[in-house]
Amino acid sequence: MEYQLLPMIGSPKELQSLSEDQLAQLAKEIREALCEIVSDRPAHFASNLGVVELCLALHLTFDFSQDRLIWDTGHQIYPHKLITGRYPQFDSIRRKGGLMGYPNPAESEYDLFMTGHAGASISTVMGLKAGDDLLRPEEGQKSVAVIGDGALPSGVVFEAFNNAAELNKDLLVILNDNEMGICPRVGGMANYLDKARVAPFYNGLKRDVSWLLNKVPMIGESAAEKVGQFKDAVKSFLHGGMLFEEIGFRYVGPVDGHDLKALRNAMEMVKEVKGPVLLHVFTEKGHGFKPATENPVKFHAPAPFSHDNEVGVVFQKKGSKPAYTNIVSDALHTKMQDDERVCVLTAAMCQGNKLDSIREDFPDRFFDTGICEAHAVAFAGGMAKAGLRPVVDIYSTFLQRSFDHIFQEVALQNLPVTFCLDRAGLAGPDGPTHHGVFDVSYMRVFPNICVMAPGDAMDVSPMLDFATQHDGPTSIRYPKSNAETVERSLAPIEYGKSEVHRWGEDGMFVAFGALFPACVAAADRLAKDGLDIGVINARFLRPLDTEVIFKAINETNFVITVEENTLCGGFGSTVLEAANDASLNTSNIKRLGVPDHFVEHGERSELLADLGLDVAGLMSAAHQMAAKTNQTKDSDPTAVSA
Amino acid sequence: MEYQLLPMIGSPKELQSLSEDQLAQLAKEIREALCEIVSDRPAHFASNLGVVELCLALHLTFDFSQDRLIWDTGHQIYPHKLITGRYPQFDSIRRKGGLMGYPNPAESEYDLFMTGHAGASISTVMGLKAGDDLLRPEEGQKSVAVIGDGALPSGVVFEAFNNAAELNKDLLVILNDNEMGICPRVGGMANYLDKARVAPFYNGLKRDVSWLLNKVPMIGESAAEKVGQFKDAVKSFLHGGMLFEEIGFRYVGPVDGHDLKALRNAMEMVKEVKGPVLLHVFTEKGHGFKPATENPVKFHAPAPFSHDNEVGVVFQKKGSKPAYTNIVSDALHTKMQDDERVCVLTAAMCQGNKLDSIREDFPDRFFDTGICEAHAVAFAGGMAKAGLRPVVDIYSTFLQRSFDHIFQEVALQNLPVTFCLDRAGLAGPDGPTHHGVFDVSYMRVFPNICVMAPGDAMDVSPMLDFATQHDGPTSIRYPKSNAETVERSLAPIEYGKSEVHRWGEDGMFVAFGALFPACVAAADRLAKDGLDIGVINARFLRPLDTEVIFKAINETNFVITVEENTLCGGFGSTVLEAANDASLNTSNIKRLGVPDHFVEHGERSELLADLGLDVAGLMSAAHQMAAKTNQTKDSDPTAVSA
Repeated sequence: MEYQLLPMIGSPKELQSLSEDQLAQLAKEIREALCEIVSDRPAHFASNLGVVELCLALHLTFDFSQDRLIWDTGHQIYPHKLITGRYPQFDSIRRKGGLMGYPNPAESEYDLFMTGHAGASISTVMGLKAGDDLLRPEEGQKSVAVIGDGALPSGVVFEAFNNAAELNKDLLVILNDNEMGICPRVGGMANYLDKARVAPFYNGLKRDVSWLLNKVPMIGESAAEKVGQFKDAVKSFLHGGMLFEEIGFRYVGPVDGHDLKALRNAMEMVKEVKGPVLLHVFTEKGHGFKPATENPVKFHAPAPFSHDNEVGVVFQKKGSKPAYTNIVSDALHTKMQDDERVCVLTAAMCQGNKLDSIREDFPDRFFDTGICEAHAVAFAGGMAKAGLRPVVDIYSTFLQRSFDHIFQEVALQNLPVTFCLDRAGLAGPDGPTHHGVFDVSYMRVFPNICVMAPGDAMDVSPMLDFATQHDGPTSIRYPKSNAETVERSLAPIEYGKSEVHRWGEDGMFVAFGALFPACVAAADRLAKDGLDIGVINARFLRPLDTEVIFKAINETNFVITVEENTLCGGFGSTVLEAANDASLNTSNIKRLGVPDHFVEHGERSELLADLGLDVAGLMSAAHQMAAKTNQTKDSDPTAVSA
Repeated sequence: MEYQLLPMIGSPKELQSLSEDQLAQLAKEIREALCEIVSDRPAHFASNLGVVELCLALHLTFDFSQDRLIWDTGHQIYPHKLITGRYPQFDSIRRKGGLMGYPNPAESEYDLFMTGHAGASISTVMGLKAGDDLLRPEEGQKSVAVIGDGALPSGVVFEAFNNAAELNKDLLVILNDNEMGICPRVGGMANYLDKARVAPFYNGLKRDVSWLLNKVPMIGESAAEKVGQFKDAVKSFLHGGMLFEEIGFRYVGPVDGHDLKALRNAMEMVKEVKGPVLLHVFTEKGHGFKPATENPVKFHAPAPFSHDNEVGVVFQKKGSKPAYTNIVSDALHTKMQDDERVCVLTAAMCQGNKLDSIREDFPDRFFDTGICEAHAVAFAGGMAKAGLRPVVDIYSTFLQRSFDHIFQEVALQNLPVTFCLDRAGLAGPDGPTHHGVFDVSYMRVFPNICVMAPGDAMDVSPMLDFATQHDGPTSIRYPKSNAETVERSLAPIEYGKSEVHRWGEDGMFVAFGALFPACVAAADRLAKDGLDIGVINARFLRPLDTEVIFKAINETNFVITVEENTLCGGFGSTVLEAANDASLNTSNIKRLGVPDHFVEHGERSELLADLGLDVAGLMSAAHQMAAKTNQTKDSDPTAVSA
């Protein structure tokens, strides 16, 4: 398609001069650009199609070079990027070195916060408003948060609502209500919003007053009956805003989120309102692209696809190896068949964690809490106390939201909750908000948790068996990738025991997690270079298999620990601590992992290569350690083999 | 006083046989016991006096040897302990080896979860109910959570409400509404509950219906006016429950929480109701002890005191040395005078963190979010982005609740937020839910955060100066204790620089934080034993002063790292990591800190001694290292001084 208007928009200020027809044309071009560019890579799709008019209305009403705008969760940022000067680079989105698929302050002054975790937008715009009011009160900068209905039940949202009402700051919260989280939304709040959909719009108010008056209870009925009926009637009438008004927000809406004129009118109306306002906007995920509106879950972040009107949508086929996510999901399904105590909880990650068949086959033992990770973990703690074996299946990075509940409701009580940390490691094109490179360090902080990682596909199912039978908290991490398999006679999973894949005279890789196969491949190639390097599949971090690892430290020239986690307090540090406690010399240990800075987005393989965690990097590290320890041995024969 | 009934109650089942008069007598005796025993030690006081009748009504209505009861936050557990067989040990409460001041499953089957952090009770009873329903449906066990209005705004509460409404489990949530958190409550929810106080009680319903009907708009007024008035009228009428009903709970109340009969009636009524129910109970903090009802903030956890009717309450005087908390508060007050960008945020810790004078003198730059740590941190992120220098002043253990927001809203954006972590280290009689012994490990997981700890009282103010001027996130930790001072010519606080207090030929203590003076004292005494031990006041963990610390590792016989934090990933590990990265031999390093298990309650000094972190323990570690390294030197002169 020829883009007539989109390439001309260098800044949102240029929207002001467009006619209504031109704005409609621009919306069309934005949707075309999304379909054209985004369909050729895995990217957030349906949510971006849904906010085109909302985005235009925002930039037409406010001047976000001064005013403040936060897109909560951030994956619906594409139209915003297209009209804030980034159309020329848009083809690079989600590619290494290119535009990020989330807001990025390094790209544009129009992106204030890098957001990827849900729910904090109201808090951050409150902070921006508080700062602007204190530092530049004369400028009257406005503050706007756009939050989806999926993010709404996150606890931090409620905390922010509660505090905003108290402070009574001028604040506009736009509820982008598309009836969906990433999975179908759940919870009391969802039911509440569903009622708003069928409630009369505000322009029907007059009619509703008379309708309401007809419901006023008649004399003769009992007081309780009267009140009950009356309450129900009143509640129906007030739906669409009462809850928000109760807590101290002014509620406006709902407004059709694809009617640009209505949106602009509503925003102009609330722009100068004092105090916190919630503007309720209905949008349709995938709007303008029929296959996506028909299946918004599938098109939330679809595989690359082609589309024409005759054959419809054709998705690119995926690789042949199953992903860790699928292997875990299948294994959990089996455990649930074998053991009635096993339950599965997730936080709006049914699709991401491939839990659909579990939801269907075990509806009584599957719990999707929505984007409420903190509650999910505390809920699991209660289940475990009652005798169940709950498995909390959440992305590594999102489980950070539950840190304090991992502490109090699980570790402190020493309860048998199993954490399955999906996307643990470099999450690829989603980038720094989604990389799960901290969990090894944070899960091992609290006592009692048995911290594990499968070395390959074969480890997964027996490790889950072990975890769900262990009488205490357990944690299992695995990356967002296809699962390699190291062909071998599998050693059983035993508490605190590693698997020695093979011993090496010259040195040893000790891999914690999914880089184990890469270590095996590196060792194979190093053998051709004349280095005899062994590989240990560590499996356990706590308890650490000190017997085997100390043997490697003491009896070979060097040990290289390998993990897809920050080097700050990770697996390598655990090895150093244990060796230090045993008074071993640790100078022949080299730790490989994620360095102490945030890692950009890109394909996982690209990022691993950058960080020296691919086969070539592992080989290079081994050669360096071999050279170094040989040198040391020559100059001081006692230093490393003592 | 003579206790007639209390010593006879070996189990709550024995309450059933008591007459109303006897129950009233028992309530009186419980209050007497609280006043008598609790007044001689720092303990939670007013909240326990407030729940006496509530506790009795609960145990009279339910059988918690089968049914499930969680006291949220847990410090109001004393009456429950007194009537669940623990009267004989009650005098030991909050003393080392004695009863815990919080629920403790190791003490009694009536305590299900060790709770100390607010807000998770609804999630955990939901989990218990889900487990009971799946595993023992025929037993019909009930599930009850008691939660205070102070804990109510915590995000996890809202997450649980939302999920409970969806699951529609039979669940009783008792809102113990005493108009107070630990500090006066804040937020929209507080205003909401305040309205409930003045709203008509349910027994006045009939009157209210006619009152409401009089408010129905008259013909002739505009529709908008009509609706506005009508909505207000309806809202007033429905206050006390609408918000909870909106989200899917059945609301019952409010009930006078000191009227045992009314409480029992209300509980009997809701006991068999299907689905989630919220019972709203009004209690008075300090009920039955006038000085406490008059000043519930002061009597939340008062200093030991005596009381007679003539002289009133006399508090024991505190030690002469100021506490870290006060020093920080005073220093912050000064910073706020000097720098208009400095703001202070806390989460219901105005009293605990001694922030009253800041609240009074800088009302525009002081923000108490209530028990909403997650929001507080994200809010601070927004402030910092707008140009302020927010200081988040929260207990170490409670800041765990914000872990994910420290990640996304602060570290990832590299914003200048300063975290002041009070009660970092062993929190004393509050015990394992309150010990702040994980923050060193968790604050250093995320890139960009400059992690610090003052070595003594003199370090505090310059460190805060540094922090509030540093262009990035900073974190400062200090314990719940009086602040020692090491007399010296103070070295200025410089980014990443430690302070070498004195050099030692034989070995070095490297202290991170408030154990620095103990290290100096130990070194002084070790000198008398003939050991020349130096002391480094590390000040910074990130960046670590590798120059000085490596010199200590390379040029003295041993280095002992000292910290009041878990040894898993703490300061000592950071030293090991840095030394390992530099290929140093680390076998002459000994790490002292908190071991990898949960630490019981007791006086901080008792616990430090147990863990070898007092002067005697530090001396002993130095002697051991001296003996070990001498031995090693004898057998292998290159191994430790290479």
